[in-house]
Amino acid sequence: MSEIKERIAKVRELMAEAGIEVYYVPMSDCHNSEYVAAHFKCISFITGFTGSAGHVIITNDDAWLFADGRYYIQAANQLEGSGVTLMKWGQPDVPDPGDFVAETAAGKVLGFDGSVVNADFAKKISRKAKNVVHDRDLIGEIWTDRPEQSFSEIWEVPLEACGEKSEEKLARIRKELEQAISDSPNAVKHGSYGYFLNSLDDIAWIFNIRANDIPCNPVAYAFAIISGGIAHLYTNGKGYGRDWYKNEEMHFDNVLMDTSRISYDTYCYFADQGSTIIDIRNPSTLMKAVKNDTEKACLKEALKRDSAVLIRFMHWLKTNAGKIEMDEVSVDTYLTGLRKQDPKFLDRSFGTIAAYKENAAMMHYAATPDNCKKIKAEGMLLVDSGGQYSDGTTDITRTFVLGELTDEEKKAFTLTAVSMLRLLNAKFIKGSRGENVDFAAREVMWKVGWDYKCGTGHGVGHILNVHEGPHNIKWEIKPAGASAPFQEGMVVTNEPGVYREGKYGIRTENEMIVVPYMETEDGTFLQFENLTFIPIDLDGIDVQYMTEEDRKFLNDYHQLVRETMEPYLEDELNEWLWNYTREI
Amino acid sequence: MSEIKERIAKVRELMAEAGIEVYYVPMSDCHNSEYVAAHFKCISFITGFTGSAGHVIITNDDAWLFADGRYYIQAANQLEGSGVTLMKWGQPDVPDPGDFVAETAAGKVLGFDGSVVNADFAKKISRKAKNVVHDRDLIGEIWTDRPEQSFSEIWEVPLEACGEKSEEKLARIRKELEQAISDSPNAVKHGSYGYFLNSLDDIAWIFNIRANDIPCNPVAYAFAIISGGIAHLYTNGKGYGRDWYKNEEMHFDNVLMDTSRISYDTYCYFADQGSTIIDIRNPSTLMKAVKNDTEKACLKEALKRDSAVLIRFMHWLKTNAGKIEMDEVSVDTYLTGLRKQDPKFLDRSFGTIAAYKENAAMMHYAATPDNCKKIKAEGMLLVDSGGQYSDGTTDITRTFVLGELTDEEKKAFTLTAVSMLRLLNAKFIKGSRGENVDFAAREVMWKVGWDYKCGTGHGVGHILNVHEGPHNIKWEIKPAGASAPFQEGMVVTNEPGVYREGKYGIRTENEMIVVPYMETEDGTFLQFENLTFIPIDLDGIDVQYMTEEDRKFLNDYHQLVRETMEPYLEDELNEWLWNYTREI
Repeated sequence: MSEIKERIAKVRELMAEAGIEVYYVPMSDCHNSEYVAAHFKCISFITGFTGSAGHVIITNDDAWLFADGRYYIQAANQLEGSGVTLMKWGQPDVPDPGDFVAETAAGKVLGFDGSVVNADFAKKISRKAKNVVHDRDLIGEIWTDRPEQSFSEIWEVPLEACGEKSEEKLARIRKELEQAISDSPNAVKHGSYGYFLNSLDDIAWIFNIRANDIPCNPVAYAFAIISGGIAHLYTNGKGYGRDWYKNEEMHFDNVLMDTSRISYDTYCYFADQGSTIIDIRNPSTLMKAVKNDTEKACLKEALKRDSAVLIRFMHWLKTNAGKIEMDEVSVDTYLTGLRKQDPKFLDRSFGTIAAYKENAAMMHYAATPDNCKKIKAEGMLLVDSGGQYSDGTTDITRTFVLGELTDEEKKAFTLTAVSMLRLLNAKFIKGSRGENVDFAAREVMWKVGWDYKCGTGHGVGHILNVHEGPHNIKWEIKPAGASAPFQEGMVVTNEPGVYREGKYGIRTENEMIVVPYMETEDGTFLQFENLTFIPIDLDGIDVQYMTEEDRKFLNDYHQLVRETMEPYLEDELNEWLWNYTREI
Repeated sequence: MSEIKERIAKVRELMAEAGIEVYYVPMSDCHNSEYVAAHFKCISFITGFTGSAGHVIITNDDAWLFADGRYYIQAANQLEGSGVTLMKWGQPDVPDPGDFVAETAAGKVLGFDGSVVNADFAKKISRKAKNVVHDRDLIGEIWTDRPEQSFSEIWEVPLEACGEKSEEKLARIRKELEQAISDSPNAVKHGSYGYFLNSLDDIAWIFNIRANDIPCNPVAYAFAIISGGIAHLYTNGKGYGRDWYKNEEMHFDNVLMDTSRISYDTYCYFADQGSTIIDIRNPSTLMKAVKNDTEKACLKEALKRDSAVLIRFMHWLKTNAGKIEMDEVSVDTYLTGLRKQDPKFLDRSFGTIAAYKENAAMMHYAATPDNCKKIKAEGMLLVDSGGQYSDGTTDITRTFVLGELTDEEKKAFTLTAVSMLRLLNAKFIKGSRGENVDFAAREVMWKVGWDYKCGTGHGVGHILNVHEGPHNIKWEIKPAGASAPFQEGMVVTNEPGVYREGKYGIRTENEMIVVPYMETEDGTFLQFENLTFIPIDLDGIDVQYMTEEDRKFLNDYHQLVRETMEPYLEDELNEWLWNYTREI
């Protein structure tokens, strides 16, 4: 721990030299990515905290780490003795990190690396500061053995897997850019424009390119400028660098950017020049969320093959638990091994969560070889995992029952299944959002005074990031724009759960796609089509917690699993499946 | 109709003289009231349209009226031959009225009466105009027989009915004003302040005053200025007038106002002086929505007495329909007569909607003696009515079955009851809003491809306006601030329905109050307590459209009605009630 203290002391020395009184460190890269590669894990270097999200604030006397509910326990352990104070982000008495930085820097000199902070957030934290220094990466300056930013080979998604040529996507985007210019009171009408884009999943989708630059996220480090006539793509092979946006040969009457994604440095460069900046949300974010027919066909197939992997895994686990040696790490190895047998498998879509018994109460638990539970013929094992295939991305959770459950565990397991199935069967009018239908999943929980402290679902990319917007399913209503109405072709997960610290954790997660339900004189109605075909472990189900309709939902679902998966499984497995999809 | 044309022609002459190219007329008064008295019905005078809401835009060549879904049919009839184009506000292809005014006035001179348009809306419609003239009430200038603004006697609500002294309310408001000053980056810290208030229900609540200046809305025309030391109340007896805010003797370092309510004239007066204006939402809006213990006890009692009135009415109607002469107007007279027998009755809380058969498909139908349906022993009669009592405000709808129904009508009647009962029984986590729980009501409708084109519920004032915010129940998610999370003590209606043009309309409406449900390790959970005790007409119920739980909800509700109302009814009525609250 003295190492961490020394590093922070060095940062404070640099702060003093630069006249910086408050220094802010994000968990981010130059692309505003949700998950960052080792090169960008400045927070891990400076605090020892290895979670995937966080904010660090350093002053001359104090240092704070904001970690969210997934990481309260882990962060508390990792910060012990570091002198860094843990802020439990999301707790009612803990301020919003952006507001906390702004208040801490009120009237002072605030510093941060403006190439890894998006413009909106930078403006938020700077709003009360006396002065802002945003050209110093103080962590990078002291991080001597910092891993290099790594660039992998870029491959092109064939039309058979993406369904739309890049030129067609660009044409659709340009139409929206031109509309934004026409709508903007400040724009130079009919002038030239340059649209500056740094977000990797948007770029991957627009240009139909993929790579392996960030583990589990099949993206290439890239920047792009889209103008009326030309689209410039900057990758490792061609012009990639922190000053990508500084091209003296290009001049645009209108500069378009999504200030919630673009780096503050990029924004300031044009703002300082007095360019006409038009702030838009990246049009591709919504476009890529709405899957086309090719994408739909591909991802449905990928999800069926992935379901077969999980059924195979479930069979192995339920047959062998308590008979052979296994632990949280080895079951992940076994499962990933099964996925790797698929010739289209590229990578996992995120780090597997294999959490046994009370470990599953930590929603984003990550077992390590040195510190993982042995699995026996008792309790429950939660496995949340997914694959990146060359025809689709998967994300699926099942909780497996390995022994006798207590009554409370059975109730929790059953209500989780009921919650998932009710949402899967929800019907809703066009225009509805996740905040409207979340009740379908949560009602049965709220009725008994239970609530899971996370969203019910998130969008899933196509051969892309396992989390994507703009839609999601949650109950909290955030300012407009934070969610989007459901549209036919959006993929979304459905993953309610029950988490009891020190006892157990249960989650059941399917992927679904939005499809038409009916058209009537009262409007257009939508529903979800199920994409995941894996049994819900009947050993955890207690029918006393289900209505007639809930039982019908479960039986119908299991019949669908059995019938859909039959061609994907050998006879022995199909026979085993019969019992685990039996009518109850 | 030539009269309307003449009036518009006169307005156009005045426009030409004043150099105004686009003139805007709201349905509003100097207080941003939802319902306005005759004096302020400029839209009726200039177009002939008598609905309660609308926007009129007049140019040299055109004139438009925006009317919402409640009034499409009525407005089309009333505008016929007037030369005024009906804009069906809320239809997907019809622009937002504010945007329409802004676009129509782009690059032109826009005129309106700035004393009856709130500041936010005025800024919205003015944003593209070349110039704005906001000191001319052109309708008033040609309206020779305009009704006077009428002022009634003001009375004070006793502490036994309001539960909190005005001084205490003012202290709570000042605390919020001072917080707003402390939070504002522009404020003169620790400076003096004046908070300018024009909304009548806020003023009525703060000062515990009531009157009868607007039919059905027991408010007094008033303005108020609240400063750190003094609260100034301007009524007809004391300083009421359009220039109430121009007091040369008062000076404030900080001027606070709710720009979504305050008139544009008031706003401009201070903006032009260069005052520091702090825009806040009126703090009293949320405060008055959360009823205190006294208010709760009073309103519960008022709602029980009002329920007794409705049971009496239901008995009379069901016994006499087809036997004695009755029509849509006479049943209202009869019902209001019953309410008037209550010594605490003050007024109706809104114009009764008594709509027979297909008339009920118009959600806000208003029968007139010259044009109303005779009621026979067939079909359904929808009655939506309410009373202002000296101890509470009521709003209640029942649809009564007077003859054999078709299968579709029975289905619609039953699903409406199911919808209302499911929402009444919903449990939800603290922080939930109407947008979250609306699904509880609408799910059963959406499942069969039905949807009612209105919100499911609205707040209800205490001895005040029958519509009050900030909370409500609807599914559309508007920008943040448009709704508010439920809090213990908020009263809200629950009024789903089915409306079939040319055929029938069904609505079942109860009032509810938010109460605690349970506290668990997962949080605080809330539920609704029922406030309205009137049977749901069992002659319309078909159990094939109900789940077991729905039947339980209905039977439990009817048992509660029977037991609660027993002391309020004479033996004969209690006997009759037994049959209409029987278990099914």
